[in-house]
Amino acid sequence: MKKFEEKTIQSETIFRGKVVHLQVDEVRLPNGKTSKREIVKHPGAVAVIPVTKDNKIVFVEQYRKPLEKSLIEIPAGKLEPGENPITCAIRELEEETGYTTNELSFVTSFYTAPGFSDELIYIYITDELKKLDVPKDADEDEFVDVIELTLEEAKQYVLEERIHDAKTNYAILYLHALESRG
Amino acid sequence: MKKFEEKTIQSETIFRGKVVHLQVDEVRLPNGKTSKREIVKHPGAVAVIPVTKDNKIVFVEQYRKPLEKSLIEIPAGKLEPGENPITCAIRELEEETGYTTNELSFVTSFYTAPGFSDELIYIYITDELKKLDVPKDADEDEFVDVIELTLEEAKQYVLEERIHDAKTNYAILYLHALESRG
Repeated sequence: MKKFEEKTIQSETIFRGKVVHLQVDEVRLPNGKTSKREIVKHPGAVAVIPVTKDNKIVFVEQYRKPLEKSLIEIPAGKLEPGENPITCAIRELEEETGYTTNELSFVTSFYTAPGFSDELIYIYITDELKKLDVPKDADEDEFVDVIELTLEEAKQYVLEERIHDAKTNYAILYLHALESRG
Repeated sequence: MKKFEEKTIQSETIFRGKVVHLQVDEVRLPNGKTSKREIVKHPGAVAVIPVTKDNKIVFVEQYRKPLEKSLIEIPAGKLEPGENPITCAIRELEEETGYTTNELSFVTSFYTAPGFSDELIYIYITDELKKLDVPKDADEDEFVDVIELTLEEAKQYVLEERIHDAKTNYAILYLHALESRG
């Protein structure tokens, strides 16, 4: 048995959406009692840290309805069913920034919110960017601006909370650690 | 108008839970078309990076039902309505680890999953830990083991994906960056 495992007694799907599904599981706790767990199912996501030849980071600014404001984030997108994370990374980079690459290094992956969701995000980095001759169309309901910033500028945006999400804060700290190593 | 703002035409609450609420908003996009946004409302959370006098990091291992496995994470918990993040940080530290502190430094905050949720997590650090004489009870449906690790051990757990969540991966990288600075 897995440590502190919570066995499912009953599982109810409340909602099936375009992005998330919501289910509520009744579980048996390690002490024999029961409880409910609210679970947001997500297909997973991929993000890219794109670094240009002149050492700028390519970000996208987009409106985040849950926050009712725009954030500046590294390019990212949802995985399609069965999709390889690298394929997804290149698609999102191309659609959102107009750059492409054939060189991506894996940085890390993490669950964004394991208390209530199974969303896993894969993070890649590249400093081998090429401008696409013909830009790709973004998703029809996606509106983004491309913003290129130095690491110092990006750190300032963290302080101003215009950069304010897990994957992008992680990316800034990762680049900072790389730079400190020299 | 905020950049690329998506005005709400209609908002429907699908589910009100103990931890999350789910709503679906119909929005007017910048190009005048409409779309739906699935939004998971969350009260926000606080996490602490607790460092002992002998330079170990205090983690808790707990079962994460959405992932159907246990993760090793820094101590964290949900904000109560109107609660000060510092109060929440100390409560979660005490309940989950048996340590307390009267010295917490703010590290950063970030939205964990801004594409579909408004969860904001505040991260604090302390190296001023004191063992509680009388341990606090954890929440009645919460079962955790306390694990103290060196930074090197924690990095190994990242590679083994036993540490595998946004706030804890961020914490490890933050401590790594601190150590590199000397």
